[in-house]
Amino acid sequence: MKIETVDFFYLAMPEIRDVGDGSQDVLLVRLRAGEWTGWGECEAAPLVSIAAWNCPMSHSACKPVSHSVLGQRLESVEDIGRIHRAVRENSLDLLQADHTLSGIDIAMWDLLARREGRPVHSLLGFREVFPKIAYASQLFGADAQETFRKAEKVRGLGYRAAKFGWGSFGRGTPEADAAHVRAAREGLGAKADLLIDAGTVWENDVARAELRLGAMEECRVRWLEEPFVSGALGAYRELAARCDQVKLAGGEGCHNSYQAINMIDYAGLGFIQIDAGRIGGITSAKVVADHAEAKGLIYVNHTFTTSLALSASIQPYAGLSRHDLCEFPVEPTPLARSLTTVALGPDANGEIRAPDAPGLGVTPDLDVVRRHLVKVDIEVGGKLLYRTPEI
Amino acid sequence: MKIETVDFFYLAMPEIRDVGDGSQDVLLVRLRAGEWTGWGECEAAPLVSIAAWNCPMSHSACKPVSHSVLGQRLESVEDIGRIHRAVRENSLDLLQADHTLSGIDIAMWDLLARREGRPVHSLLGFREVFPKIAYASQLFGADAQETFRKAEKVRGLGYRAAKFGWGSFGRGTPEADAAHVRAAREGLGAKADLLIDAGTVWENDVARAELRLGAMEECRVRWLEEPFVSGALGAYRELAARCDQVKLAGGEGCHNSYQAINMIDYAGLGFIQIDAGRIGGITSAKVVADHAEAKGLIYVNHTFTTSLALSASIQPYAGLSRHDLCEFPVEPTPLARSLTTVALGPDANGEIRAPDAPGLGVTPDLDVVRRHLVKVDIEVGGKLLYRTPEI
Repeated sequence: MKIETVDFFYLAMPEIRDVGDGSQDVLLVRLRAGEWTGWGECEAAPLVSIAAWNCPMSHSACKPVSHSVLGQRLESVEDIGRIHRAVRENSLDLLQADHTLSGIDIAMWDLLARREGRPVHSLLGFREVFPKIAYASQLFGADAQETFRKAEKVRGLGYRAAKFGWGSFGRGTPEADAAHVRAAREGLGAKADLLIDAGTVWENDVARAELRLGAMEECRVRWLEEPFVSGALGAYRELAARCDQVKLAGGEGCHNSYQAINMIDYAGLGFIQIDAGRIGGITSAKVVADHAEAKGLIYVNHTFTTSLALSASIQPYAGLSRHDLCEFPVEPTPLARSLTTVALGPDANGEIRAPDAPGLGVTPDLDVVRRHLVKVDIEVGGKLLYRTPEI
Repeated sequence: MKIETVDFFYLAMPEIRDVGDGSQDVLLVRLRAGEWTGWGECEAAPLVSIAAWNCPMSHSACKPVSHSVLGQRLESVEDIGRIHRAVRENSLDLLQADHTLSGIDIAMWDLLARREGRPVHSLLGFREVFPKIAYASQLFGADAQETFRKAEKVRGLGYRAAKFGWGSFGRGTPEADAAHVRAAREGLGAKADLLIDAGTVWENDVARAELRLGAMEECRVRWLEEPFVSGALGAYRELAARCDQVKLAGGEGCHNSYQAINMIDYAGLGFIQIDAGRIGGITSAKVVADHAEAKGLIYVNHTFTTSLALSASIQPYAGLSRHDLCEFPVEPTPLARSLTTVALGPDANGEIRAPDAPGLGVTPDLDVVRRHLVKVDIEVGGKLLYRTPEI
């Protein structure tokens, strides 16, 4: 069984707003081998990840991703590993390749698990699947009052944990930020886990981050996420040393397992957050989950789009019981919400489980795909290099 | 003075060969502000870096690079810094953005320095420029005999240092590799610096790398470059501890200064190698050079294409006297060799200096550009998003 086709579908809302909502577009990947089809998703910038699929070769270590994927044997987990390594080696100098590979890797796991009639987590070697507490992931309100209302709302919906992020947080005064954090705690009530996402706003400025710690300690924030950019190891470690109960979280920007392992080993994190749609798919994410388990950190998925991406992001730690939180975007766009025929979500206990169905357990609704499809044509040197395929 | 246009020109040899020669294509950047023009170059995968320039926005932190550049004020070094930070922030989730930014950043430095009638190194604050020993950078021969002849040839040309890399090195037996290293030393003679580039061939496998150390110690190899992929900090440090006289070199894969600083701080390197065409341009490279100076490592440029890229790569450490080596590709393609009206190269003493002329001191030959131009058309959603401009 060989990989015969890999198709990319760029989907988007009719209007893309200038807000931190990552569910406004989707790069869906359809991979076919033999009689089987697998689906995957790449995080963000669909056009650029498509270009990485079949750009012309620059030299031996800068080939398009397609070079290492099309025509390859796909019959076992070892084959996935081999293709994964080949992409990394043959596209070493093609930066975007890691994001393109992510969706392909997810689709390979989906296809292989479907063929064996097993869920992906079973193919990953997990014998048991543990429920994760779904944390309601959303943007801060425009003001503290709106943040309060958003917190109250997710509390009413039964969430046991909630995260607020982006918006104006970290850009104004520490007092304004403290008002948001207090409003969130008040709205959630005393019991729920409160998580704060600074969205890398302070780049590597420990002093500016530290000014916000007091309110977070006071409100028993469980984690402060991405005070700094991914890889600013020294800044993370310095801030971590100044925290009392608050732990730091980060890692979503990592695009290979080495970067994430460095964050685990040197950044003083309490939580490592991995986006399977960026890090190189389920293969790389599983390496990081195992390292987090070994080092005593807590692994958490990062995801902000569809149920397909959500399922892919849960698989790598589905069977690790100590890692008990799961990001769940509560305000996705209609596109992201309706993309799959089955939508994943928390149960009455506020928990999510990786589906027990074959593969990722979700498939795209092709009518929704057709309605949101953005056609792409790329011509290089007078030749058509890429055209969005039929769905 | 505002940035009015940024144009990308994808240039390529008529045939791209499947070898580790990075000079087979070029992504040239022309930036115009007021009456002035600056030129820059992005390393590798031209189509993908073009796509990152004006892909549609995915969300607030995944905007095309153009969003943060076009129309911006460009009158001072501070303006370059501001634009640089804006790209990093607004294109946080667009992986390829760092490579696109690199060429733009180089062009901004070139333009601003030209306008002030000063070389870029002067604008960077250096009062004096120090010559660097040009090391002849080339691929290994197909067999040890050919490696010997290549070494003998560059010795005859007056080079005081030479590097051999890629090809079959590291993929066969340690004995075959040892034969190449001994042939290189024999061809170079006893005095010249011998450098070996493993091109990340062992990924993170310390044992396989260690098998090659004996021959390198015996042949007094000054550095072993990229035994492992960028970011494999633990593997680098472990191998470094097993070296005697041989030092490790690495860092060319870094696409921001944080990654390079981590390589300096945690990888046990003797040399940090930075490609200005990948790391975010001269701005980011200078941050790394200063950190290397502070930490006692030796900073070296990475470059394998044109005199434009070479000049850009030397500027960040032109005034740092202790950092005395400079990569010089001795086998560039006719495209790379002829792209600039003036070609940089070593003097009779085997040394290279950053040019004393305004800006980068080199400009493209527009006839050569026209002859090698590869036209690109990108259509998204039925609208023409990008078309190669007139030159």
